[in-house]
Amino acid sequence: MSTVKKDYVRPLDIKNGRVDMGHGAGGRAASQLIEELFLSAFDNEFLRQGNDGAVFAPPPLPAGARLVMATDGHVVSPLFFPGGDVGCLSVHGTVNDVAMSGAQPLYLSASFILEEGFPLSDLKRIVESMAAAAREAGVPIITGDTKVVERGKGDGVFISTTGLGVVAPGVDISGSNARAGDVILLSGTIGDHGVAVLSQRESLEFETSIESDTAALHTLVAAMLQAAPGGVRVLRDPTRGGLATTLNEIARQSCVGMVLEEHAIPVLGQVDAACELLGLDPLYIANEGKLISVCSPQAAAAVLAAMHAHPLGQAAVQIGVVTEDPHHFVQMNTRFGGRRVVDWLSGEQLPRIC
Amino acid sequence: MSTVKKDYVRPLDIKNGRVDMGHGAGGRAASQLIEELFLSAFDNEFLRQGNDGAVFAPPPLPAGARLVMATDGHVVSPLFFPGGDVGCLSVHGTVNDVAMSGAQPLYLSASFILEEGFPLSDLKRIVESMAAAAREAGVPIITGDTKVVERGKGDGVFISTTGLGVVAPGVDISGSNARAGDVILLSGTIGDHGVAVLSQRESLEFETSIESDTAALHTLVAAMLQAAPGGVRVLRDPTRGGLATTLNEIARQSCVGMVLEEHAIPVLGQVDAACELLGLDPLYIANEGKLISVCSPQAAAAVLAAMHAHPLGQAAVQIGVVTEDPHHFVQMNTRFGGRRVVDWLSGEQLPRIC
Repeated sequence: MSTVKKDYVRPLDIKNGRVDMGHGAGGRAASQLIEELFLSAFDNEFLRQGNDGAVFAPPPLPAGARLVMATDGHVVSPLFFPGGDVGCLSVHGTVNDVAMSGAQPLYLSASFILEEGFPLSDLKRIVESMAAAAREAGVPIITGDTKVVERGKGDGVFISTTGLGVVAPGVDISGSNARAGDVILLSGTIGDHGVAVLSQRESLEFETSIESDTAALHTLVAAMLQAAPGGVRVLRDPTRGGLATTLNEIARQSCVGMVLEEHAIPVLGQVDAACELLGLDPLYIANEGKLISVCSPQAAAAVLAAMHAHPLGQAAVQIGVVTEDPHHFVQMNTRFGGRRVVDWLSGEQLPRIC
Repeated sequence: MSTVKKDYVRPLDIKNGRVDMGHGAGGRAASQLIEELFLSAFDNEFLRQGNDGAVFAPPPLPAGARLVMATDGHVVSPLFFPGGDVGCLSVHGTVNDVAMSGAQPLYLSASFILEEGFPLSDLKRIVESMAAAAREAGVPIITGDTKVVERGKGDGVFISTTGLGVVAPGVDISGSNARAGDVILLSGTIGDHGVAVLSQRESLEFETSIESDTAALHTLVAAMLQAAPGGVRVLRDPTRGGLATTLNEIARQSCVGMVLEEHAIPVLGQVDAACELLGLDPLYIANEGKLISVCSPQAAAAVLAAMHAHPLGQAAVQIGVVTEDPHHFVQMNTRFGGRRVVDWLSGEQLPRIC
């Protein structure tokens, strides 16, 4: 992003203006869009370098520390939904992907693909939401890029973010670390994000007061790791595909089985009702501010206590245990006393949910 | 990207299959696409971790070394063009953005936004081109994400890549470092990429043997820095907006003027002819394998010699000098003995050229 101040005849008309192809062409219009809209919102010393990349001092890296890089594209539809928008989602999503390695996120980059004709006022709202989320998380957006595609070749705004973080020495979190006898924790209710987004879809608009749970989980992760050093083995945020798919991924990666307790899995009444109405299963619905953790049985109580003490983990619960199972099945003891297999999401239950 | 091997009933039908919404939903189909198409092409230990982010040991960081992060979205249309495609372009573009800080690029991430209905055979071709470019550059793609949008809400494939690199101690490259008296070098002919892409546009298909210059420039940069430690002040690749816009950006950032020699700027005959035909000016046309360098006058000869010795700098030339100019104008002595101002690109000369 070029950052040097220029003298423009007219500032951007944010109120009535729209994205045009010139905003992506790399000339004056592009430069003006970046300065007046992106730089003023994201304002930081790295972007102000005005070069093709952002140069920064390496973070403190004690012996045994590692780095982590994660990326996520955000194509949620609609762009604005109860509790958030594509802007804050694009920050939270990637901060969380970095945090799920047990890392402290440091910096983000952002790549925007804008559709010609998109209102600048909506773009400003999204960018300001991103900036606020980045500030709140303490993870600045230090470099970026903007492209524009013709009307009908995009869908308003797509945002791909990439995050860099540091994993402290001794922290070893991976989807492949679960062992039979471990405990499965969930940080709160499931399905809120997916239902909040669905409630705004034109084809199925319905009344609900459910808001997306979109949030940055890295401080929750830090509290959990501190509470039980070495005790947290797996962290994963159950986004696309929901809790069921994420647990199946972990079971497969770790070559274990899982047994869940249906009654223990928290679902808000309104989410349950909406799922009933739409014929959906909350186990497969995306979350954007929840995490699953697999912990050693010795560590579970301390980790759960740390979660309860954090604003984003107050409703944390144990939802099941890890078992030996050559088939790597995720099974669930139902409310009615039966047991069933909880399979992967196999279709396309909810497109463009994040 | 989830990476654990699963047993599928049927492998992907690459030959006749198409991207569907399920490939972006995070379930089985998404997992299969990632494993059979992305993982097999990008194959490396980081992706095989199978987690939301890639964890890696920090690079050697001697005292004074810094890191650099750069990101670029790629929306080129058409996706395939003479000399390249969106795949290799998305590697070269970001490797170059990292290299323009004087850095050694280390790792890339990739975020794919696919349009429903896109042929899997074309996707495979693009992914293999990316993988080959990453291998050739020695910069692996260590983490990624794939989303799918409905038919008519995207345009085949958009790829956003982010790169991480290391700037060696003592290297200080920035668009703000040019000083009056410095020399401006260009690594080769201009306009090749833009003309190659334009030649394939449906609206204006024309016959040419021009190929895109798309290439990774980091080894050229390393050779230049080694040839004249401290002598290279600015590096920039003239992509969107072309040579003219990039030089204006540098002039503005460094608060200097520039005087170019038109006769010294190399343009291939076929590029010149195509520009004539289309009413375009090669000075504003995008390049993807060229760089501009501003050097101290003492260093210029050594830097130029290093460029000539590199396959991507054989046609390198001095194209002008940096001057004092309170207006920060880029001017050009024309072939006809006059002098004119070379302004920023002001319109939208070439949308979706990269």
